[in-house]
Amino acid sequence: MTTTIKLYDLAAKDESIRFSPNCWRVRLALAHKNLPVETIAWRFTEKQEIAFSGQGKVPVLVDAGRCVVDSWAIAEYLEATYPDRPSLFNGVAGKALTRFVNDWTETVLHPAIARLILPEIHAMLHPRDQDYFKTTREAFFGCSLADLAAEREAHLSALRQALRPLAATLGQQPYLAGEGPAYADHVVFAALQWQRVCGGHDVTSAESALSGWFTRMLNAYEGLALAMPAAA
Amino acid sequence: MTTTIKLYDLAAKDESIRFSPNCWRVRLALAHKNLPVETIAWRFTEKQEIAFSGQGKVPVLVDAGRCVVDSWAIAEYLEATYPDRPSLFNGVAGKALTRFVNDWTETVLHPAIARLILPEIHAMLHPRDQDYFKTTREAFFGCSLADLAAEREAHLSALRQALRPLAATLGQQPYLAGEGPAYADHVVFAALQWQRVCGGHDVTSAESALSGWFTRMLNAYEGLALAMPAAA
Repeated sequence: MTTTIKLYDLAAKDESIRFSPNCWRVRLALAHKNLPVETIAWRFTEKQEIAFSGQGKVPVLVDAGRCVVDSWAIAEYLEATYPDRPSLFNGVAGKALTRFVNDWTETVLHPAIARLILPEIHAMLHPRDQDYFKTTREAFFGCSLADLAAEREAHLSALRQALRPLAATLGQQPYLAGEGPAYADHVVFAALQWQRVCGGHDVTSAESALSGWFTRMLNAYEGLALAMPAAA
Repeated sequence: MTTTIKLYDLAAKDESIRFSPNCWRVRLALAHKNLPVETIAWRFTEKQEIAFSGQGKVPVLVDAGRCVVDSWAIAEYLEATYPDRPSLFNGVAGKALTRFVNDWTETVLHPAIARLILPEIHAMLHPRDQDYFKTTREAFFGCSLADLAAEREAHLSALRQALRPLAATLGQQPYLAGEGPAYADHVVFAALQWQRVCGGHDVTSAESALSGWFTRMLNAYEGLALAMPAAA
Protein backbone atom coordinates (compact mmCIF):
# COMPACT_ATOMS: atom_id res chain seq x y z
CA MET A 1 0.00 0.00 0.00
CA THR A 2 1.32 3.42 -0.92
CA THR A 3 0.51 6.34 1.31
CA THR A 4 0.68 9.88 0.01
CA ILE A 5 3.78 11.86 0.95
CA LYS A 6 3.05 14.67 3.40
CA LEU A 7 4.90 17.98 3.57
CA TYR A 8 4.63 20.54 6.37
CA ASP A 9 4.67 23.79 4.41
CA LEU A 10 4.99 27.34 5.73
CA ALA A 11 1.77 29.35 5.31
CA ALA A 12 0.78 33.01 5.53
CA LYS A 13 -2.27 34.27 7.45
CA ASP A 14 -4.17 33.17 4.33
CA GLU A 15 -3.30 29.51 4.58
CA SER A 16 -3.44 29.03 0.81
CA ILE A 17 -0.42 31.33 0.44
CA ARG A 18 2.77 29.26 0.61
CA PHE A 19 6.01 31.22 0.28
CA SER A 20 8.96 29.48 1.96
CA PRO A 21 11.87 29.05 -0.47
CA ASN A 22 13.02 25.91 1.35
CA CYS A 23 9.52 24.40 1.02
CA TRP A 24 9.18 25.43 -2.65
CA ARG A 25 12.39 23.54 -3.45
CA VAL A 26 10.82 20.41 -2.07
CA ARG A 27 7.52 20.97 -3.90
CA LEU A 28 9.40 21.30 -7.19
CA ALA A 29 11.64 18.30 -6.45
CA LEU A 30 8.55 16.17 -5.70
CA ALA A 31 6.91 17.35 -8.93
CA HIS A 32 10.14 16.57 -10.84
CA LYS A 33 9.87 13.00 -9.55
CA ASN A 34 6.14 12.83 -10.28
CA LEU A 35 5.40 12.18 -6.62
CA PRO A 36 2.03 13.45 -5.37
CA VAL A 37 2.14 15.31 -2.08
CA GLU A 38 -0.34 16.48 0.51
CA THR A 39 0.84 19.76 2.00
CA ILE A 40 -0.05 20.71 5.55
CA ALA A 41 -0.22 24.42 6.27
CA TRP A 42 2.13 25.28 9.13
CA ARG A 43 2.97 28.55 10.89
CA PHE A 44 6.32 29.58 12.41
CA THR A 45 5.05 29.31 15.97
CA GLU A 46 3.43 25.86 15.62
CA LYS A 47 6.55 24.15 16.92
CA GLN A 48 4.51 21.46 18.69
CA GLU A 49 2.97 20.33 15.39
CA ILE A 50 6.37 19.20 14.10
CA ALA A 51 7.95 18.24 17.42
CA PHE A 52 7.92 14.61 16.20
CA SER A 53 10.64 15.63 13.71
CA GLY A 54 13.05 16.47 16.53
CA GLN A 55 13.42 20.11 15.48
CA GLY A 56 11.35 23.21 14.81
CA LYS A 57 11.58 24.18 11.13
CA VAL A 58 9.94 23.26 7.85
CA PRO A 59 10.17 21.63 5.37
CA VAL A 60 9.32 18.39 7.18
CA LEU A 61 8.60 15.49 4.83
CA VAL A 62 6.78 12.36 5.94
CA ASP A 63 6.92 9.42 3.55
CA ALA A 64 5.56 6.01 4.57
CA GLY A 65 6.26 6.69 8.22
CA ARG A 66 9.76 8.06 7.61
CA CYS A 67 10.38 11.67 8.59
CA VAL A 68 13.05 13.76 6.82
CA VAL A 69 13.98 17.37 7.62
CA ASP A 70 16.25 19.92 5.89
CA SER A 71 15.72 20.61 2.20
CA TRP A 72 19.07 19.19 1.05
CA ALA A 73 18.54 16.02 3.08
CA ILE A 74 15.06 15.72 1.59
CA ALA A 75 16.44 16.03 -1.95
CA GLU A 76 19.05 13.34 -1.17
CA TYR A 77 16.32 11.16 0.34
CA LEU A 78 14.09 11.50 -2.73
CA GLU A 79 16.97 10.76 -5.10
CA ALA A 80 17.99 7.65 -3.14
CA THR A 81 14.46 6.39 -2.54
CA TYR A 82 13.09 6.99 -6.04
CA PRO A 83 16.13 6.36 -8.27
CA ASP A 84 14.06 5.25 -11.27
CA ARG A 85 12.27 8.57 -11.53
CA PRO A 86 13.77 11.67 -13.20
CA SER A 87 17.00 12.59 -11.44
CA LEU A 88 17.40 15.68 -9.29
CA PHE A 89 21.20 15.74 -9.59
CA ASN A 90 22.15 13.78 -12.73
CA GLY A 91 25.02 11.89 -11.18
CA VAL A 92 27.81 12.37 -8.67
CA ALA A 93 29.40 15.40 -10.37
CA GLY A 94 25.99 16.98 -10.92
CA LYS A 95 25.24 16.60 -7.23
CA ALA A 96 28.58 18.09 -6.13
CA LEU A 97 28.10 21.14 -8.35
CA THR A 98 24.44 21.48 -7.36
CA ARG A 99 25.75 21.82 -3.81
CA PHE A 100 27.59 24.98 -4.88
CA VAL A 101 24.42 26.39 -6.47
CA ASN A 102 22.62 25.57 -3.21
CA ASP A 103 25.28 27.33 -1.13
CA TRP A 104 25.36 30.36 -3.43
CA THR A 105 21.59 30.60 -3.13
CA GLU A 106 21.68 30.40 0.66
CA THR A 107 24.66 32.68 1.30
CA VAL A 108 24.07 35.30 -1.41
CA LEU A 109 20.57 35.17 -2.89
CA HIS A 110 18.50 34.48 0.23
CA PRO A 111 20.00 37.33 2.28
CA ALA A 112 19.60 39.73 -0.67
CA ILE A 113 15.94 38.76 -1.08
CA ALA A 114 15.28 38.80 2.65
CA ARG A 115 16.53 42.38 2.98
CA LEU A 116 14.10 43.36 0.23
CA ILE A 117 10.94 41.54 1.35
CA LEU A 118 11.06 40.94 5.10
CA PRO A 119 8.68 43.86 5.75
CA GLU A 120 6.17 42.46 3.23
CA ILE A 121 6.46 38.95 4.68
CA HIS A 122 5.76 40.30 8.15
CA ALA A 123 2.56 41.93 6.91
CA MET A 124 1.36 38.65 5.34
CA LEU A 125 1.90 36.45 8.39
CA HIS A 126 -0.70 35.16 10.79
CA PRO A 127 -0.84 37.64 13.70
CA ARG A 128 0.40 35.00 16.12
CA ASP A 129 3.58 34.58 14.00
CA GLN A 130 4.38 38.28 13.66
CA ASP A 131 6.22 38.95 16.93
CA TYR A 132 8.32 35.81 16.54
CA PHE A 133 9.23 36.74 12.98
CA LYS A 134 10.04 40.38 13.75
CA THR A 135 12.22 39.50 16.75
CA THR A 136 14.22 36.72 15.08
CA ARG A 137 14.76 38.55 11.77
CA GLU A 138 15.69 41.90 13.31
CA ALA A 139 18.25 40.09 15.48
CA PHE A 140 19.68 38.25 12.46
CA PHE A 141 20.01 41.32 10.22
CA GLY A 142 20.89 43.71 13.03
CA CYS A 143 18.33 46.32 12.02
CA SER A 144 14.59 46.91 12.22
CA LEU A 145 12.06 45.92 9.57
CA ALA A 146 11.32 49.64 9.21
CA ASP A 147 15.01 50.28 8.47
CA LEU A 148 14.92 47.60 5.79
CA ALA A 149 11.76 49.07 4.23
CA ALA A 150 13.37 52.51 4.08
CA GLU A 151 16.19 51.12 1.93
CA ARG A 152 14.00 49.13 -0.47
CA GLU A 153 15.41 50.66 -3.67
CA ALA A 154 18.98 49.91 -2.61
CA HIS A 155 18.04 46.33 -1.73
CA LEU A 156 16.28 45.88 -5.08
CA SER A 157 19.36 47.11 -6.90
CA ALA A 158 21.62 44.80 -4.84
CA LEU A 159 19.41 41.81 -5.64
CA ARG A 160 19.50 42.53 -9.37
CA GLN A 161 23.29 42.75 -9.11
CA ALA A 162 23.43 39.43 -7.24
CA LEU A 163 21.55 37.75 -10.11
CA ARG A 164 24.28 38.55 -12.66
CA PRO A 165 26.00 35.13 -12.71
CA LEU A 166 22.62 33.45 -13.10
CA ALA A 167 21.72 35.65 -16.06
CA ALA A 168 25.10 34.96 -17.66
CA THR A 169 24.62 31.19 -17.48
CA LEU A 170 21.01 31.30 -18.68
CA GLY A 171 22.15 33.31 -21.67
CA GLN A 172 23.98 30.20 -22.80
CA GLN A 173 21.72 27.29 -21.87
CA PRO A 174 17.99 26.97 -21.08
CA TYR A 175 18.38 25.73 -17.49
CA LEU A 176 21.12 25.72 -14.87
CA ALA A 177 21.14 21.93 -15.11
CA GLY A 178 21.37 22.07 -18.92
CA GLU A 179 18.63 21.20 -21.40
CA GLY A 180 16.03 20.54 -18.71
CA PRO A 181 15.46 21.65 -15.12
CA ALA A 182 16.82 19.77 -12.12
CA TYR A 183 17.38 20.49 -8.44
CA ALA A 184 19.83 23.35 -9.10
CA ASP A 185 17.01 25.12 -10.93
CA HIS A 186 14.51 24.25 -8.19
CA VAL A 187 16.69 25.83 -5.51
CA VAL A 188 17.34 29.10 -7.34
CA PHE A 189 13.80 29.39 -8.69
CA ALA A 190 12.33 28.76 -5.23
CA ALA A 191 14.21 31.81 -3.94
CA LEU A 192 12.72 33.93 -6.72
CA GLN A 193 9.27 32.40 -6.15
CA TRP A 194 9.55 33.53 -2.50
CA GLN A 195 10.24 37.06 -3.78
CA ARG A 196 7.39 36.81 -6.32
CA VAL A 197 4.80 35.65 -3.77
CA CYS A 198 5.80 38.01 -0.95
CA GLY A 199 7.44 40.99 -2.65
CA GLY A 200 6.19 40.97 -6.21
CA HIS A 201 9.07 43.20 -7.32
CA ASP A 202 10.28 42.95 -10.87
CA VAL A 203 13.75 41.47 -10.63
CA THR A 204 14.05 39.45 -13.83
CA SER A 205 12.64 41.45 -16.74
CA ALA A 206 15.77 43.50 -17.44
CA GLU A 207 17.64 40.33 -18.47
CA SER A 208 15.80 38.45 -21.19
CA ALA A 209 17.68 35.21 -20.49
CA LEU A 210 16.67 35.41 -16.85
CA SER A 211 13.03 36.29 -17.51
CA GLY A 212 12.75 33.51 -20.10
CA TRP A 213 14.00 30.91 -17.62
CA PHE A 214 11.79 32.31 -14.86
CA THR A 215 8.73 31.97 -17.10
CA ARG A 216 9.72 28.42 -18.08
CA MET A 217 10.08 27.49 -14.41
CA LEU A 218 6.71 29.07 -13.53
CA ASN A 219 5.10 26.91 -16.22
CA ALA A 220 7.05 23.71 -15.50
CA TYR A 221 5.37 20.76 -13.80
CA GLU A 222 1.94 21.76 -15.11
CA GLY A 223 2.23 25.31 -13.83
CA LEU A 224 2.77 24.32 -10.20
CA ALA A 225 4.57 27.53 -9.24
CA LEU A 226 2.39 29.79 -11.41
CA ALA A 227 -0.71 28.60 -9.55
CA MET A 228 0.49 30.44 -6.45
CA PRO A 229 -0.51 34.10 -6.85
CA ALA A 230 2.15 36.79 -6.96
CA ALA A 231 2.07 39.70 -4.52
CA ALA A 232 0.01 42.60 -5.84
CA MET B 1 53.48 12.14 -35.17
CA THR B 2 52.33 14.08 -32.15
CA THR B 3 53.38 17.68 -31.75
CA THR B 4 53.42 19.32 -28.36
CA ILE B 5 50.47 21.59 -27.58
CA LYS B 6 51.44 25.26 -27.40
CA LEU B 7 49.83 27.87 -25.19
CA TYR B 8 50.35 31.62 -25.44
CA ASP B 9 50.47 32.60 -21.78
CA LEU B 10 50.40 36.10 -20.27
CA ALA B 11 53.72 37.03 -18.66
CA ALA B 12 54.96 39.75 -16.31
CA LYS B 13 58.13 41.78 -16.89
CA ASP B 14 59.89 38.71 -15.47
CA GLU B 15 58.79 36.31 -18.17
CA SER B 16 58.80 33.35 -15.78
CA ILE B 17 55.93 34.94 -13.84
CA ARG B 18 52.60 33.77 -15.30
CA PHE B 19 49.52 35.16 -13.61
CA SER B 20 46.50 35.26 -15.95
CA PRO B 21 43.50 33.46 -14.41
CA ASN B 22 42.21 32.54 -17.87
CA CYS B 23 45.58 31.01 -18.78
CA TRP B 24 45.90 29.19 -15.44
CA ARG B 25 42.55 27.48 -16.06
CA VAL B 26 43.95 26.09 -19.26
CA ARG B 27 47.24 25.01 -17.65
CA LEU B 28 45.30 23.08 -15.00
CA ALA B 29 42.89 21.59 -17.56
CA LEU B 30 45.84 20.39 -19.65
CA ALA B 31 47.48 18.87 -16.55
CA HIS B 32 44.17 17.21 -15.64
CA LYS B 33 44.22 15.51 -19.03
CA ASN B 34 47.91 14.65 -18.74
CA LEU B 35 48.71 16.67 -21.84
CA PRO B 36 52.17 18.25 -21.95
CA VAL B 37 52.26 21.86 -23.04
CA GLU B 38 54.87 24.33 -24.16
CA THR B 39 53.94 27.79 -22.93
CA ILE B 40 54.97 30.88 -24.87
CA ALA B 41 55.42 34.04 -22.82
CA TRP B 42 53.21 36.80 -24.21
CA ARG B 43 52.62 40.40 -23.19
CA PHE B 44 49.39 42.41 -23.48
CA THR B 45 50.70 44.62 -26.28
CA GLU B 46 52.08 41.80 -28.45
CA LYS B 47 48.91 41.67 -30.51
CA GLN B 48 50.80 40.82 -33.67
CA GLU B 49 52.19 37.63 -32.14
CA ILE B 50 48.69 36.13 -31.90
CA ALA B 51 47.13 37.86 -34.92
CA PHE B 52 46.91 34.39 -36.54
CA SER B 53 44.19 33.57 -33.96
CA GLY B 54 41.91 36.28 -35.34
CA GLN B 55 41.75 38.19 -32.05
CA GLY B 56 44.01 39.82 -29.49
CA LYS B 57 43.75 38.00 -26.16
CA VAL B 58 45.24 34.95 -24.47
CA PRO B 59 44.86 32.08 -23.81
CA VAL B 60 45.52 30.95 -27.38
CA LEU B 61 46.00 27.20 -27.71
CA VAL B 62 47.62 25.61 -30.75
CA ASP B 63 47.23 21.84 -31.05
CA ALA B 64 48.40 20.01 -34.17
CA GLY B 65 47.81 23.08 -36.32
CA ARG B 66 44.41 23.86 -34.84
CA CYS B 67 44.05 27.18 -33.02
CA VAL B 68 41.49 27.61 -30.23
CA VAL B 69 40.84 30.82 -28.28
CA ASP B 70 38.70 31.60 -25.20
CA SER B 71 39.18 29.50 -22.07
CA TRP B 72 35.72 27.90 -22.13
CA ALA B 73 36.08 27.00 -25.81
CA ILE B 74 39.51 25.52 -25.04
CA ALA B 75 38.05 23.39 -22.24
CA GLU B 76 35.31 22.16 -24.58
CA TYR B 77 37.92 21.45 -27.26
CA LEU B 78 40.10 19.43 -24.88
CA GLU B 79 37.11 17.45 -23.58
CA ALA B 80 35.93 16.65 -27.12
CA THR B 81 39.39 15.94 -28.54
CA TYR B 82 40.70 13.84 -25.64
CA PRO B 83 37.58 12.05 -24.38
CA ASP B 84 39.48 9.03 -23.05
CA ARG B 85 41.51 11.11 -20.62
CA PRO B 86 40.16 12.29 -17.21
CA SER B 87 37.04 14.37 -17.74
CA LEU B 88 36.90 18.12 -17.16
CA PHE B 89 33.11 18.19 -16.79
CA ASN B 90 31.96 14.67 -15.87
CA GLY B 91 29.00 14.57 -18.21
CA VAL B 92 26.33 16.85 -19.60
CA ALA B 93 24.89 17.95 -16.24
CA GLY B 94 28.36 18.48 -14.83
CA LYS B 95 29.20 20.70 -17.78
CA ALA B 96 26.00 22.75 -17.47
CA LEU B 97 26.62 23.39 -13.77
CA THR B 98 30.32 24.08 -14.34
CA ARG B 99 29.12 26.87 -16.61
CA PHE B 100 27.47 28.51 -13.61
CA VAL B 101 30.68 28.20 -11.57
CA ASN B 102 32.51 29.77 -14.54
CA ASP B 103 30.02 32.64 -14.75
CA TRP B 104 30.07 33.21 -10.98
CA THR B 105 33.87 33.35 -11.14
CA GLU B 106 33.85 35.85 -14.00
CA THR B 107 31.05 38.13 -12.81
CA VAL B 108 31.74 38.09 -9.05
CA LEU B 109 35.18 36.74 -8.17
CA HIS B 110 37.28 38.27 -10.95
CA PRO B 111 36.04 41.85 -10.42
CA ALA B 112 36.50 41.49 -6.64
CA ILE B 113 40.08 40.26 -7.12
CA ALA B 114 40.84 42.85 -9.80
CA ARG B 115 39.83 45.72 -7.51
CA LEU B 116 42.25 44.35 -4.93
CA ILE B 117 45.31 43.62 -7.08
CA LEU B 118 45.24 45.82 -10.21
CA PRO B 119 47.83 48.20 -8.73
CA GLU B 120 50.17 45.29 -7.95
CA ILE B 121 49.68 43.79 -11.42
CA HIS B 122 50.56 47.12 -13.00
CA ALA B 123 53.82 47.23 -11.06
CA MET B 124 54.75 43.71 -12.25
CA LEU B 125 54.16 44.29 -15.95
CA HIS B 126 56.71 44.85 -18.66
CA PRO B 127 57.11 48.65 -19.04
CA ARG B 128 55.74 48.50 -22.58
CA ASP B 129 52.50 46.95 -21.25
CA GLN B 130 51.93 49.41 -18.41
CA ASP B 131 50.20 52.27 -20.24
CA TYR B 132 47.88 49.88 -22.09
CA PHE B 133 46.97 48.13 -18.86
CA LYS B 134 46.41 51.33 -16.87
CA THR B 135 44.26 52.92 -19.56
CA THR B 136 42.03 49.90 -20.23
CA ARG B 137 41.55 48.95 -16.56
CA GLU B 138 40.88 52.48 -15.33
CA ALA B 139 38.25 52.85 -18.06
CA PHE B 140 36.63 49.51 -17.11
CA PHE B 141 36.46 50.20 -13.37
CA GLY B 142 35.80 53.91 -13.70
CA CYS B 143 38.50 54.93 -11.25
CA SER B 144 42.28 55.24 -11.10
CA LEU B 145 44.68 52.55 -9.95
CA ALA B 146 45.66 54.91 -7.14
CA ASP B 147 42.00 55.11 -6.05
CA LEU B 148 41.85 51.31 -5.98
CA ALA B 149 45.05 51.09 -3.93
CA ALA B 150 43.67 53.56 -1.40
CA GLU B 151 40.72 51.23 -0.72
CA ARG B 152 42.72 48.01 -0.43
CA GLU B 153 41.34 46.98 2.97
CA ALA B 154 37.75 47.40 1.79
CA HIS B 155 38.46 45.38 -1.36
CA LEU B 156 40.11 42.62 0.70
CA SER B 157 37.07 42.45 2.94
CA ALA B 158 34.71 42.36 -0.07
CA LEU B 159 36.72 39.52 -1.63
CA ARG B 160 36.57 37.45 1.55
CA GLN B 161 32.80 38.05 1.64
CA ALA B 162 32.48 36.97 -2.02
CA LEU B 163 34.18 33.66 -1.17
CA ARG B 164 31.46 32.63 1.30
CA PRO B 165 29.51 30.27 -0.98
CA LEU B 166 32.76 28.56 -1.98
CA ALA B 167 33.73 28.04 1.67
CA ALA B 168 30.26 26.65 2.44
CA THR B 169 30.51 24.05 -0.32
CA LEU B 170 34.08 23.07 0.51
CA GLY B 171 33.00 22.50 4.10
CA GLN B 172 30.94 19.60 2.80
CA GLN B 173 33.05 18.02 0.06
CA PRO B 174 36.76 18.09 -0.83
CA TYR B 175 36.38 19.71 -4.27
CA LEU B 176 33.71 21.70 -6.09
CA ALA B 177 33.42 18.81 -8.54
CA GLY B 178 33.10 16.29 -5.67
CA GLU B 179 35.73 13.78 -4.58
CA GLY B 180 38.34 14.98 -7.05
CA PRO B 181 39.08 18.24 -8.88
CA ALA B 182 37.67 19.05 -12.31
CA TYR B 183 37.26 22.15 -14.45
CA ALA B 184 34.99 23.91 -11.91
CA ASP B 185 37.88 23.73 -9.45
CA HIS B 186 40.39 24.83 -12.09
CA VAL B 187 38.37 27.97 -12.87
CA VAL B 188 37.90 29.09 -9.25
CA PHE B 189 41.41 28.13 -8.19
CA ALA B 190 42.92 29.98 -11.18
CA ALA B 191 41.27 33.18 -9.93
CA LEU B 192 42.84 32.69 -6.50
CA GLN B 193 46.18 31.77 -8.07
CA TRP B 194 46.07 35.12 -9.89
CA GLN B 195 45.59 36.81 -6.51
CA ARG B 196 48.36 34.69 -4.95
CA VAL B 197 50.92 35.45 -7.66
CA CYS B 198 50.14 39.17 -8.03
CA GLY B 199 48.65 40.23 -4.69
CA GLY B 200 49.81 37.66 -2.17
CA HIS B 201 47.07 38.69 0.25
CA ASP B 202 45.75 36.12 2.67
CA VAL B 203 42.19 35.47 1.56
CA THR B 204 41.68 31.80 2.47
CA SER B 205 43.17 31.13 5.91
CA ALA B 206 40.16 32.34 7.92
CA GLU B 207 38.06 29.46 6.52
CA SER B 208 39.70 26.10 7.12
CA ALA B 209 37.63 24.39 4.43
CA LEU B 210 38.74 26.99 1.92
CA SER B 211 42.40 26.93 2.90
CA GLY B 212 42.44 23.12 2.84
CA TRP B 213 41.08 23.05 -0.70
CA PHE B 214 43.45 25.83 -1.80
CA THR B 215 46.42 23.83 -0.50
CA ARG B 216 45.18 20.65 -2.22
CA MET B 217 44.86 22.55 -5.50
CA LEU B 218 48.34 24.09 -5.14
CA ASN B 219 49.74 20.57 -4.73
CA ALA B 220 47.60 18.90 -7.41
CA TYR B 221 49.13 17.85 -10.74
CA GLU B 222 52.59 17.43 -9.19
CA GLY B 223 52.54 20.89 -7.65
CA LEU B 224 52.04 22.73 -10.94
CA ALA B 225 50.47 25.82 -9.33
CA LEU B 226 52.75 25.80 -6.28
CA ALA B 227 55.81 26.01 -8.55
CA MET B 228 54.79 29.58 -9.47
CA PRO B 229 56.03 31.87 -6.67
CA ALA B 230 53.55 33.90 -4.64
CA ALA B 231 53.89 37.67 -4.39
CA ALA B 232 56.13 38.70 -1.51
